[in-house]
Amino acid sequence: MKFGINFFPAVAPHEKSGAQFYDEALALCERADALGYSSVKIVEHYFNPYGGYSPDPVTFLAAVSQRTRRIRLITGAVIPAFNHPIKLAGKLAMLDNLSHGRLDVGFARAFLPIEFDAFQVSMDESRARFEEGIAACLRLWTEENVVWQGRFHQFGPVTLLPRVYQQPHPPVWIAAVSTPQSFEWAGWQGYHLMIVPYLSKHEDMQRLLQLYRDAWRAAGHPPGAEQVQMSFHAYICEDGEQARREAREYMDDYLAKFIQAAAGWNTRVSEQYKGYEKTVEQLRAITYERVLADTKAFIGDPDEVAAQVRLIRDYYGEVEPSMQITFGNMPHERALRTLELFAQHVMPRFQEQAVSTPPGRA
Amino acid sequence: MKFGINFFPAVAPHEKSGAQFYDEALALCERADALGYSSVKIVEHYFNPYGGYSPDPVTFLAAVSQRTRRIRLITGAVIPAFNHPIKLAGKLAMLDNLSHGRLDVGFARAFLPIEFDAFQVSMDESRARFEEGIAACLRLWTEENVVWQGRFHQFGPVTLLPRVYQQPHPPVWIAAVSTPQSFEWAGWQGYHLMIVPYLSKHEDMQRLLQLYRDAWRAAGHPPGAEQVQMSFHAYICEDGEQARREAREYMDDYLAKFIQAAAGWNTRVSEQYKGYEKTVEQLRAITYERVLADTKAFIGDPDEVAAQVRLIRDYYGEVEPSMQITFGNMPHERALRTLELFAQHVMPRFQEQAVSTPPGRA
Repeated sequence: MKFGINFFPAVAPHEKSGAQFYDEALALCERADALGYSSVKIVEHYFNPYGGYSPDPVTFLAAVSQRTRRIRLITGAVIPAFNHPIKLAGKLAMLDNLSHGRLDVGFARAFLPIEFDAFQVSMDESRARFEEGIAACLRLWTEENVVWQGRFHQFGPVTLLPRVYQQPHPPVWIAAVSTPQSFEWAGWQGYHLMIVPYLSKHEDMQRLLQLYRDAWRAAGHPPGAEQVQMSFHAYICEDGEQARREAREYMDDYLAKFIQAAAGWNTRVSEQYKGYEKTVEQLRAITYERVLADTKAFIGDPDEVAAQVRLIRDYYGEVEPSMQITFGNMPHERALRTLELFAQHVMPRFQEQAVSTPPGRA
Repeated sequence: MKFGINFFPAVAPHEKSGAQFYDEALALCERADALGYSSVKIVEHYFNPYGGYSPDPVTFLAAVSQRTRRIRLITGAVIPAFNHPIKLAGKLAMLDNLSHGRLDVGFARAFLPIEFDAFQVSMDESRARFEEGIAACLRLWTEENVVWQGRFHQFGPVTLLPRVYQQPHPPVWIAAVSTPQSFEWAGWQGYHLMIVPYLSKHEDMQRLLQLYRDAWRAAGHPPGAEQVQMSFHAYICEDGEQARREAREYMDDYLAKFIQAAAGWNTRVSEQYKGYEKTVEQLRAITYERVLADTKAFIGDPDEVAAQVRLIRDYYGEVEPSMQITFGNMPHERALRTLELFAQHVMPRFQEQAVSTPPGRA
């Protein structure tokens, strides 16, 4: 089983400067690379403390590429609606080469009204821009003398440089939250899937994931070759009570920033985002107690967290947890502790060889 | 006197992969950082071997930021016409933080028809987009709750994250080639200047530079605080004859790729690019012998190159040569030799000239 880490910055300038956030994040990446984590992921968001420290995930991952040797770099995700496909395909191709083929490209539609407004993009064009952007990137990566006649962009013949490192192109992932069409479409296309389970009931997410896997098979892609990354906040101490006590502050902080960023949904309805007008309401209903009770995060001592990981695997099958080990305005040492404890005490229990004989921990 | 290095990739996929080019460039940056070079710069270009390996200079410089400790990182240049200002200001702010304030931002108008066509931007809007893009970035860097009502973009109120590291903002540089208006405007605004002398006669470039310095003073900016970077191809061997013999191939290669990229000018006229319709003709007139005879490049043994640097200083006053130590399809070892020999034998002769230039208003 693979385990990745996932940066969703949720800090404001008066809490942590950009320089401090990146310094700490890069140190965590370096250590994660050494400890055997599988991937490092970062979002694309703007303006708000919720994600705003990463308006360009490729810039951050280019820095990570020079601090790590083997870990995969994943955009989680880039937003075609806010990026010209030539620009997007070009910088991703640079990153694929800078990292010697360690790039995974996650694409998303975005969902915050303030971001669409700033880029003067209609939310009702969200899916069309997303699909066109991905298709254009794929052609720019795999073909020469590309002529593109899309709804939003027309260009060519042009040959993108540099050519991508991975052949035929870097793996493509789709970020999906709750729209069934997104799950089905991703499976049909043969793309991998990045999901965020803490916003949904496990039953609902299981159903959505099944839609994805069914579509994958129905389209004739090799069964079992699909990959799924699932985001979880993670906070571990040697003492489980301490972990639960300490993590509350950062989870509440993270959710409060999410609610602030999503406020635009209070006055917005979009056909392409059915139900999103209830986002703030849904977020307000998320309590820390329910996050713990429903295993929507990995919080506790190593034994408890290992049990939580097993539960998730039982629910969803073989997925790659993508763990937010820093969330809200968390001190670096606490994120580093989670990283170390998980690698030392939890990860070994999920290595192929260890499955038959789980090492008891005291 | 300060000396920087300057990457203008001019290689095709069948010559060097992107991965090889970046590996070599990053190794040169790491060494340049240790040897006391002042800055590392890279272009923004697309599609052609001429510059095409750098469609996003910020991606490359983000990688450089983690391989170096003190050298300044300069976009040479980014193109507002091809980048949304929110995107551009955001990734540059990330780079400023990733590098702990080592970023210099060079902006340019771009000049290749194929690039404007691909982004569906009219060359006749070139100056307006350039000026609007710079102004929008400056406001996003220095103000909160920015409302932007421009000709090409409208947004706000938004507050860019992360906030820039350097206060009030990273130094701003303007790339200018031959349009007098560009030189005057840069001086008037109080921006630093990046120029490419090998396309012009020295007398013409001296005159243009004077326009810049005059405008700088007339606008009330502190005399002498303006900074000028000047691009030179550089190739050094212990034996001057060998240097001249070997460099010819790479200079011819570079110019041939430039001519290929500029071919779009054969069928284009733009009021905002007066005279550019003769670009290919002018490039064809550049011979290697004239480059040498007119000191349009630093080529020779260390003594000869030191004399060339002195001559340039006599022509233009205190400028920072920004040296292309790799051009065309040059083997890495040859670029590295130039870097080492220049640092060892040429740079020390100009150390007594070193002035600590205060960070510009820019």
